[in-house]
Amino acid sequence: MTFSASSPVSFVRSAVDGEIARFVARRRAQLLEIGSELAPAVDALEAMLAGGKRLRPAFCYWGWRGAGGADVPGIHAAAASLEFLQACALIHDDVIDNSDTRRGLPATHKRLEELHERSGWSGSAADFGRGAAILIGDLCLAWSEDLYQASGLELEALRAGRTPFDAMRTEVMAGQYLDMLEQVRGGGAVEATLRVMHYKAAKYTVERPLHLGAALAGRHEDLSPVYTAYGLPLGVAFQLRDDVLGVFGDPEQTGKPAGDDLREGKRTLIVAETLERAGAADRAGFLRRLGDPGLDTDAVEWMRGVAEDCGALAACERRIDDYVEQAGTALESGLLDGSARSALADLVVAATARKH
Amino acid sequence: MTFSASSPVSFVRSAVDGEIARFVARRRAQLLEIGSELAPAVDALEAMLAGGKRLRPAFCYWGWRGAGGADVPGIHAAAASLEFLQACALIHDDVIDNSDTRRGLPATHKRLEELHERSGWSGSAADFGRGAAILIGDLCLAWSEDLYQASGLELEALRAGRTPFDAMRTEVMAGQYLDMLEQVRGGGAVEATLRVMHYKAAKYTVERPLHLGAALAGRHEDLSPVYTAYGLPLGVAFQLRDDVLGVFGDPEQTGKPAGDDLREGKRTLIVAETLERAGAADRAGFLRRLGDPGLDTDAVEWMRGVAEDCGALAACERRIDDYVEQAGTALESGLLDGSARSALADLVVAATARKH
Repeated sequence: MTFSASSPVSFVRSAVDGEIARFVARRRAQLLEIGSELAPAVDALEAMLAGGKRLRPAFCYWGWRGAGGADVPGIHAAAASLEFLQACALIHDDVIDNSDTRRGLPATHKRLEELHERSGWSGSAADFGRGAAILIGDLCLAWSEDLYQASGLELEALRAGRTPFDAMRTEVMAGQYLDMLEQVRGGGAVEATLRVMHYKAAKYTVERPLHLGAALAGRHEDLSPVYTAYGLPLGVAFQLRDDVLGVFGDPEQTGKPAGDDLREGKRTLIVAETLERAGAADRAGFLRRLGDPGLDTDAVEWMRGVAEDCGALAACERRIDDYVEQAGTALESGLLDGSARSALADLVVAATARKH
Repeated sequence: MTFSASSPVSFVRSAVDGEIARFVARRRAQLLEIGSELAPAVDALEAMLAGGKRLRPAFCYWGWRGAGGADVPGIHAAAASLEFLQACALIHDDVIDNSDTRRGLPATHKRLEELHERSGWSGSAADFGRGAAILIGDLCLAWSEDLYQASGLELEALRAGRTPFDAMRTEVMAGQYLDMLEQVRGGGAVEATLRVMHYKAAKYTVERPLHLGAALAGRHEDLSPVYTAYGLPLGVAFQLRDDVLGVFGDPEQTGKPAGDDLREGKRTLIVAETLERAGAADRAGFLRRLGDPGLDTDAVEWMRGVAEDCGALAACERRIDDYVEQAGTALESGLLDGSARSALADLVVAATARKH
């Protein structure tokens, strides 16, 4: 297998993609034996799995390699299992948020809603779409575990991996719940927002996948502090970059309309910073527009201006820089295998580079 | 541990209840460390787990005992893990069906909706309740696996158990999806309804838990045909009994309003039989009333009369009797351990006895 040091994600991606495709093909056959009407559900599940940057598998894989693990198929499969967990999180998240699109395509519940409409079935198409998406997400969650267990790694290794694997799932669901709470409490203060990011992004996307890789390689004890020191700041920086792009990103690069997070009213850190820093009049105008689905380009421009002028954008960029530096420093640990260290350094850039 | 042969479910129940309580207490502590606002979510999860007849754990336990397994805590924990899977299924099912009550109490999404209302939070209380219930169900599904893996049984045994454990989860979700399809297609023909029952009830509630017990005891190969021969007819009979109670049951015994399934418009087998057997006028009147949430006592009485007069009720009772007999015959296999055989015979009675 060739390895391009400049692209530690794409190196893992093709192996992970192969594991996902083989696993879904096996399960598709099993489901179609139960009933051919299940095909659209598997199609929707597969479509959701086809997208994505495979960031969590990449961190899991390089966490394993950093612990001295070899490039064997078992770790590709175990890493791929995280994509099924992520697919569940996204499918259910879209139902929870009533988001109709995901990566520029119809969300899973929308796909099934459209199937209902096309088929002329009775009852509410929206209810059907939502119900089907809940079940498809459940399948993804169950299959995540199945693929992990069927990865072919040693039973003892899989048992050692359970501590981060279990924690990861509980934490991401807790983080989502806290996120929902923040939205309805209209809180969105900087501290509260950072806590949600800690669980929903930093631990879930970066730290726990690294811990999993280390644990599978039997190195949880000595390496997890290194991976925490690297993963937590990187994970927050990654989410901050995403939040900044959600407000300032170029639609051509993000695949989402400009200022989409503002239209959705997401209580991200850049919003929290803006609300804490802007003057009273700007703050009121910003709050009034936030979450208005009909925001036009001028309104988005105005809100961007407020976020920039009050220093919220700069504060976020400063945080990203700080966190990126912290992550880099953590990589200086002598415990890490050399090629993995350079891949992990590249992942910092891949996850946090400015694209606007 | 004392063992009352007349009550194989209650024998298992206290051990299973203990495992559930200990596991939830550990996870509650972990969640409260993340944030004290998570307490209502854990309360709702625990409330859902507090109910239930522990039928699936009982079948798993007796499947293990029938295979010669000893009465050790590991099998109680592994059996208890099935209750978390079931809690996920029920919580998500109530969201999917918009059912506001479960066992006479508010459904999980209703509990969280009420929390939203009491707290005066912003946004839609119904959306919050639904979103929170999706996440709480996800937690239950993840925890089911965690408890299974942490049961303390040997790693090799747990690996052997994965085949039925994995199949069970895929089948129940597929069964739920097919059930949703039947509802919106307005199908509900006898054959289609029996297929849903096969996956959603017979395999999920009885056959797979028995298979799991046998596999954990290293006896999947020789015992699973026996358990299939016993479990599939019993599972259908169990669901049929439930369906009959949903139409004819006494509210004092079922904990649900009389004729609740008719009000909800559930396409159960007794409904399918009625629609196939009743005369044109009765059929039309039955269909018109089916699914009307405002059905009064007279209308329920009239529908019961139709189901009885056309022979649908008798046909269901005949099926139950046939299936019960088939299950009993399967128990004559010489492969089963003696005390388990008598417990499994008692479970037939417990699961299918007339209560109306």
